[in-house]
Amino acid sequence: MLITENTRDFICDNIDRLEDGELTFRGQRLTSLAKKYGTPLYLYDEEKIREKCRAYLGAVKAGFGSRAKVLYASKAASFKRLYEIMREEGMGIDVVSRGEIYTAHRAGFDLQNAYFHSNNKTDEDIEYAIDKGVGYFVADNAEELYAIERIAGAKDKACRVLLRITPGIDPHTYAAVATGKVDSKFGSAIETGQAMEITKVALSLPHVTLRGFHCHVGSQIFDAEIYLMTSRVMLDFVKDVYESLGYLADELDLGGGLGVRYIESQPTLDIASVILSVSDALKAHADELGITLPVICFEPGRSIVADAGLTLYTVGTVKDIPGYKTYVSVDGGMTDNPRYALYGSPYTILPVIASESEDREVSVVGRCCESGDILQEGVMLPSDTKRGDLLACLTTGAYHYSMASNYNRIPRPPVVILTKDSDYLAVRRESVEDVASLDL
Amino acid sequence: MLITENTRDFICDNIDRLEDGELTFRGQRLTSLAKKYGTPLYLYDEEKIREKCRAYLGAVKAGFGSRAKVLYASKAASFKRLYEIMREEGMGIDVVSRGEIYTAHRAGFDLQNAYFHSNNKTDEDIEYAIDKGVGYFVADNAEELYAIERIAGAKDKACRVLLRITPGIDPHTYAAVATGKVDSKFGSAIETGQAMEITKVALSLPHVTLRGFHCHVGSQIFDAEIYLMTSRVMLDFVKDVYESLGYLADELDLGGGLGVRYIESQPTLDIASVILSVSDALKAHADELGITLPVICFEPGRSIVADAGLTLYTVGTVKDIPGYKTYVSVDGGMTDNPRYALYGSPYTILPVIASESEDREVSVVGRCCESGDILQEGVMLPSDTKRGDLLACLTTGAYHYSMASNYNRIPRPPVVILTKDSDYLAVRRESVEDVASLDL
Repeated sequence: MLITENTRDFICDNIDRLEDGELTFRGQRLTSLAKKYGTPLYLYDEEKIREKCRAYLGAVKAGFGSRAKVLYASKAASFKRLYEIMREEGMGIDVVSRGEIYTAHRAGFDLQNAYFHSNNKTDEDIEYAIDKGVGYFVADNAEELYAIERIAGAKDKACRVLLRITPGIDPHTYAAVATGKVDSKFGSAIETGQAMEITKVALSLPHVTLRGFHCHVGSQIFDAEIYLMTSRVMLDFVKDVYESLGYLADELDLGGGLGVRYIESQPTLDIASVILSVSDALKAHADELGITLPVICFEPGRSIVADAGLTLYTVGTVKDIPGYKTYVSVDGGMTDNPRYALYGSPYTILPVIASESEDREVSVVGRCCESGDILQEGVMLPSDTKRGDLLACLTTGAYHYSMASNYNRIPRPPVVILTKDSDYLAVRRESVEDVASLDL
Repeated sequence: MLITENTRDFICDNIDRLEDGELTFRGQRLTSLAKKYGTPLYLYDEEKIREKCRAYLGAVKAGFGSRAKVLYASKAASFKRLYEIMREEGMGIDVVSRGEIYTAHRAGFDLQNAYFHSNNKTDEDIEYAIDKGVGYFVADNAEELYAIERIAGAKDKACRVLLRITPGIDPHTYAAVATGKVDSKFGSAIETGQAMEITKVALSLPHVTLRGFHCHVGSQIFDAEIYLMTSRVMLDFVKDVYESLGYLADELDLGGGLGVRYIESQPTLDIASVILSVSDALKAHADELGITLPVICFEPGRSIVADAGLTLYTVGTVKDIPGYKTYVSVDGGMTDNPRYALYGSPYTILPVIASESEDREVSVVGRCCESGDILQEGVMLPSDTKRGDLLACLTTGAYHYSMASNYNRIPRPPVVILTKDSDYLAVRRESVEDVASLDL
């Protein structure tokens, strides 16, 4: 029920292959896009992004009526056009820095609907966010609360604050993306009593208006049970706080983390079913506890944009090392996709033009002077793959452009957005002049 | 003999602590620099960079007379001012992209002394390098050779080329930085016969002037024996090529990779001794083989700039999780130093102001919304460390600024260079406006 049946050849329904053998993305020929914009090239499928926003918004409406919000976790992909789309779809946003606040502001996004996260907000960050009218702070710890109090006080303003709580749940996912555990750089743990302590602090500060609690258990979670468990733990905490301190949370933010299908062996989660199962569990548990359910927030990032993205590369060399391996190098790499180098993340890489020659196993590597610059190992590609051929790496909408670097002084690719019958530039290609522009 | 005796309190001789407890870098107070430029802040010690260049240049002169070159591997740190310093010191450079070529050109560096590396040069790269007058191509593979031939031919020019060879030596270093093995994305292996094959190809191309061979066994190598072994293997190959094809290499480039001391348990290599031992071995082996020793090139990157660098951070929060761990967050992180996240690289992190309170073990973490955003675990810091305190991360001159990203839309820190009694900006601080400047 929680998983969408996949009856197609490709891992996502915006990928297809024409009869002449060419791969398409949202119905568009990839060779034409490569010709028009060059490679490497980040592509986004606008309809897919909107479809995902609507899936979340529809599901929370069905599950919670008007007492729910969906905030796009914009660290997954942050550029001006995306905030415009979020605005148009009626999404809230989660921002984590002055840079993201600035970009959302430039996009005309109403920052009253923005939640400012991060485990370490500097005084300058807090001041900037207050000045820009950011609606909510998600305070990570007591020091931050005192800083918000001091800065808001000096401006004679009050800040709406949620507290980041660690529910003590290990989602059995990659260590690097597991954030709900007690031992985490994020938040205050229920288990250690620190969550209750920080709540007391928040309630004692005159320029802090406590709105509720936030948690985030991790990323790439396919097991809905994790969310049900988290929901119950957090609601128990809401009840404990109510009993101990007489404060009933207005909002409960359950974070994001829904898994996305990168490779065939992973499932496609049905967003609506997951949200509805969480909603059922929360409502039942609120009844058990005899409390009013707070407004529930979800913060999807990856699951909004990941499979709306695809990266196009051109092959540079094919190197067979007899008895060892075949390396296929492309004109991008860890500069535009550091996720394999960082986490060994799996991806599906396909030839843009199908070939009749047999597939063989290769390592697809980048162009950086770094041995760790690998995009994926164990990729099946036609044995006649050669210099100039195009490859498509699927599901690159999240944590690609946002994590890109200029290592080796390599400029970052542009972002082109596809609509049903058109395409437009959302982020222009960086030039070598841009890369060196800060040098004095 | 190959290791410099360290009789000081700090891992590098440009670090010291004043009697009042303040840490200094090249004799300068870090609090003043933090006040003047803000944090996070990359600092470079210009004298240390020059000292390292001179150590290499002096050693190759002593070992090889005029028949040697030292090329700075600029991917370690690439910005305009560094190429100016290299020009002033009489160094050659190793560049890996159009971006590095452009930057060196802007710095007025004579590109005749530049060697263009990379496992995947696009046609545009090759054309750009020829047009800018880059002196040498280090061709990684046959496809690249044909591309050079085609593009140089069309321009009626000849290109001087070295061939990248994999000697088949595993330096027992991190897998991600081991590049001399046969199973590598770089070069052509001697073992498989492909090195000889590519040499034949190079000799057959009219617009390719073969100059010799290049290899690079890896990074962070502390065992000089690896270089002696590599030298012998490469010289044997030079001899084999001479016997098989009648071509005697003019140049033999042994790459870089000399280890740098990041933490106390690592040694400080004596550059001159290592170079001289390689020189002795090469001269003896050339005599044995009865061939003229080619001009020998070394390509140090990390060992020129790493300990000339230091990053200053300001503490944001100190979070004790009783029974688990203490997290100290700073205002930078994997955006300015991705090396712990990528490779678990060790660093020494010190408080700028000494404290009388006892040290305790903490994890120093960054400000990114990413659990993997850790700068170092197991750091000993005074137990009274608090918001606003300055921390210094040592040995950050290599692969920090060059690998920095804008993840979370966090702007990159500036680069400030220290001289004996002054300081100047070499790369200005990025702004949020800069970060969003490519967004349309």
